[in-house]
Amino acid sequence: MTDDAPRRWGRRQLLQTGAVALGGAGAGWSAAAVALPAEHSDAPGAADDGATPYAASPGTSTVAFHGPHQAGIATPAQAHLSLLGLDLLPEVRAEGLGRLLTLISDDAARLARGLPALADTEPELATTPARLTATFGLGPRVMSDLLGSTVAVRALPAFRTDRLDLAWGQTDLAVQLCADDPMAVAHARRMILKDVSGFARVRWIQDGYRHAHGAVPDGTTMRNLMGQVDGTVNLAEAMPDFADLVWSDETGFEGGTFMVVRRIRARMESWDRVDRVGREAAVGRRLADGAPLTGTSEHEEPDFEAVDDLGFPVIDPASHIARARSADPRERFLRRAYNYTVPDPSRPSGEDSGLVFIAFAADVDRQFVPVQRRLAELDRLNEWVTTIGSAVYAVPPGAAEGEYVAERLLAV
Amino acid sequence: MTDDAPRRWGRRQLLQTGAVALGGAGAGWSAAAVALPAEHSDAPGAADDGATPYAASPGTSTVAFHGPHQAGIATPAQAHLSLLGLDLLPEVRAEGLGRLLTLISDDAARLARGLPALADTEPELATTPARLTATFGLGPRVMSDLLGSTVAVRALPAFRTDRLDLAWGQTDLAVQLCADDPMAVAHARRMILKDVSGFARVRWIQDGYRHAHGAVPDGTTMRNLMGQVDGTVNLAEAMPDFADLVWSDETGFEGGTFMVVRRIRARMESWDRVDRVGREAAVGRRLADGAPLTGTSEHEEPDFEAVDDLGFPVIDPASHIARARSADPRERFLRRAYNYTVPDPSRPSGEDSGLVFIAFAADVDRQFVPVQRRLAELDRLNEWVTTIGSAVYAVPPGAAEGEYVAERLLAV
Repeated sequence: MTDDAPRRWGRRQLLQTGAVALGGAGAGWSAAAVALPAEHSDAPGAADDGATPYAASPGTSTVAFHGPHQAGIATPAQAHLSLLGLDLLPEVRAEGLGRLLTLISDDAARLARGLPALADTEPELATTPARLTATFGLGPRVMSDLLGSTVAVRALPAFRTDRLDLAWGQTDLAVQLCADDPMAVAHARRMILKDVSGFARVRWIQDGYRHAHGAVPDGTTMRNLMGQVDGTVNLAEAMPDFADLVWSDETGFEGGTFMVVRRIRARMESWDRVDRVGREAAVGRRLADGAPLTGTSEHEEPDFEAVDDLGFPVIDPASHIARARSADPRERFLRRAYNYTVPDPSRPSGEDSGLVFIAFAADVDRQFVPVQRRLAELDRLNEWVTTIGSAVYAVPPGAAEGEYVAERLLAV
Repeated sequence: MTDDAPRRWGRRQLLQTGAVALGGAGAGWSAAAVALPAEHSDAPGAADDGATPYAASPGTSTVAFHGPHQAGIATPAQAHLSLLGLDLLPEVRAEGLGRLLTLISDDAARLARGLPALADTEPELATTPARLTATFGLGPRVMSDLLGSTVAVRALPAFRTDRLDLAWGQTDLAVQLCADDPMAVAHARRMILKDVSGFARVRWIQDGYRHAHGAVPDGTTMRNLMGQVDGTVNLAEAMPDFADLVWSDETGFEGGTFMVVRRIRARMESWDRVDRVGREAAVGRRLADGAPLTGTSEHEEPDFEAVDDLGFPVIDPASHIARARSADPRERFLRRAYNYTVPDPSRPSGEDSGLVFIAFAADVDRQFVPVQRRLAELDRLNEWVTTIGSAVYAVPPGAAEGEYVAERLLAV
C-alpha cells in the first residue's frame, strides 16, 4: 500500500482478506433474513438523524454512532457498562490498526442502529440496542509509537495512594460499550471481541452497572455501592463550558477527548464499621440526598467557611468534597462512572466491589491530575477506597458516515 | 432452649446476642431517617397485599415476600439474577440455621417492600426494589442431617455429558435474588451476605441476566447467548397443571418445591463455526422466531412425523427439542434460566458464557431427571454445551407474616 492511498478498506474485502478469523459460514448469513424494525435502514449513506435516544420503547431507542464526537461520552449514562482493555498483537502496525478500526466502527454503527453486525452470528440479539454506544480509545503506545501522533496522551503520574495491579492497567486500546439492556451489551461485546480477535488480545474486561433505565428519574445522580450520591459536581452538555472542558481543539484531533479509567476498590468490610455521621463527615455530603453538610439540597454550593457552635468547620477540610473542590474552573471533567461487583468467595464479604471511575477531559494533565493529586495527598475517603487499576486513552473525534473512528489520525 | 419453645427469635434480640458480626453502629441506624415512599408501611403485621408487581415505575414495583409459596418461582422472571451458594459453618446446627433463616427472611421481606434491611448500612439503596425477590433453598445435607426431614432432596444422578467442577457444586443453602434493577440485586446481595457471614461461607455466586425490563414485551420467551429462543415449552402459573407440577403436596412441605441449578457453559468458539441451517437443525427450531422447523409460530406444536421431499424427518430425532420432548405430561417443569458471562482473558473469546439453568419441580426425579437423562444420552446441542455445575435444593413453602421461611420444617 502506498502512502497516498487512502487507508480505508471495504468491509467485505476485509472479511475475505483480513486477519480476522471468522466463523465458517458467518459472512454468508444474510442480515436481511432477520426481522428488523421497519424504520431502520441499512442503505449505504443512511443518515443517523433517525437516532431515537428516548423512544417509547427503551429496547429500540438508539444513539447515533456517527457525528463530530464519539457516542458514549456526552450521552447520558446508560444502565450497563462493559469496558474492554485490549493489547494489539506484536505484528499489528498502523495498517492493521486501521483494518481493526474499520471493522469495529462498521459493526458498532450497525449495532447502534439495532442492525446485526455484518457477520453477525446471532443477528436476532441485535434488535434491542437500548441506546447502545461504543466508544474507542487509543493508549499512549499506539498514539506515539504506532501512529507517531503529535497528540500526546501521557500516562498519569504515580499517586501515593494507588495500589496498581497490571491486570487492570494501561492497554493499547479501550472499547467502552454501554446500553440500557444487558443483552445489548453482551451481544455487542461478543461481536467486537470477535472483530478484534485477529488483531488484539483481551487484557481485562470491566463490567459495571447503575440503576436500570426507568428505575429512577432521568438525570438522577448515581449512587455508588457505599451508598453515596456520587458525581453531583459534574459537567452536562448543556453547560456553556462543556465543549471547552471535554472536546479537544488540538489540530487533527478536534472533537476528540481523553479518557481516564480508574478501578477503585471499596473496602466494604471496614466501611461497615463507620456510622452515618462518620460517613457523611468523610464525604462532606448527606447520605439521604447528597446535599452538602451546610445545605439542604444536592446541587447547592457547599459553604466551606461555615462553622458549628463550637467553631469547628461544618465540612471537614479533609473531606472528599473539600479536597476535590478547586477554585480553578478548569479543574473539572466529565464523570461517567459505574459500580462494579465481582464475586470473590475468598473475601470475607464474598465479593469485590467498587467503582469503575471513567472521566473525560480535553486536557487530563490540566483538568484531572491536580484534583487526583489533592485527593491522593489527603481525602478522608482514602481510608476505604483504593485505586487498583489506572489507564488513560486518547478518544478520537467521531467518525462521519462512511468513515471509521481515527481515520484522520491514521491518514496523516 | 426447650423443645416445646417456639423456634422463633426476635430480630433485635438476634442482633444483640446472635452469631452475627455486625458493623459497630449498624443497629443504631434508624430506618426512619431514610426517605421512603409514603405507601410503604413497616408496621408489624402490615399486609403484603399492597404488592405492586407492575407499577407505573419499574423501580418501585414490588413482589410480596410472604405468601403460601416463596416469591421468585412463579414470579415472571426479572432482568437480573444473583444466585448465592452457601455452606454452613461446621458449628451451625438446626438452631443456628433457624436464626439465619429468621434474619434473612426478615431482611428479604423488608427489601422486597422497598424498605431498608433492619441494620441496613446503605438504606438509600433499598428504595428501588424493582420486583426484588429472594428465594431460599436447602441442600440435601441440611434437609437430612441437620433437620432430619422426611422430605427427601436427592442429589441428581451422574449424567455422562457432565463435566462438574465442585467450585459450582452442591451447597448447603442457595439464595436466589432477582430484580429488574441491578442496583436492587447488588444491595440485597450485600445485605444477605452480611446476614449470613456469621453462619455460612460463600462457595459461589452465579450472576445472570436477561433483557432489561421493558426492552422486549412482557412474556417474550428469553433468548440465550447462542441466539436461540430458549424455554418455549415452559409452565406458566395460569396453566391448570401448574400447581401440580410445581408445588409439593408432601406433608409438612405443602406449597414448597425443588430447585435444580445447572451451570451450562457454551462453547461459543465452536458454535461460531456452525451456520444458521446447522444451528436450527441442532435445536429443531427456527432462530428467527423460535417456531419448530415444521411450523410457523413459536408456540405451535412440533410435528415430529413430518418428512421432507427426500423422506428425511424435518425435525432431526437427535435435535434438542425432539430429545427433550416426552409423551408423559409429568415430565415437565418450570424453567427460570438466566444468561451468564464472566470475563476470562485466558479464553480465545475473552469470556466464559452460558446459561444458569434454574428449574423448579414438585418431583425432580419424576419430572426433571428423565428429560435430562435423554438429553445426556443424545442431543445434538451437546456438541456445544457442557454442564459444569449442578445442585439441587428443597425450596420450603412461603412464610406467612411474622414467620420465617422453613420455620415449620425446623419446628417438627
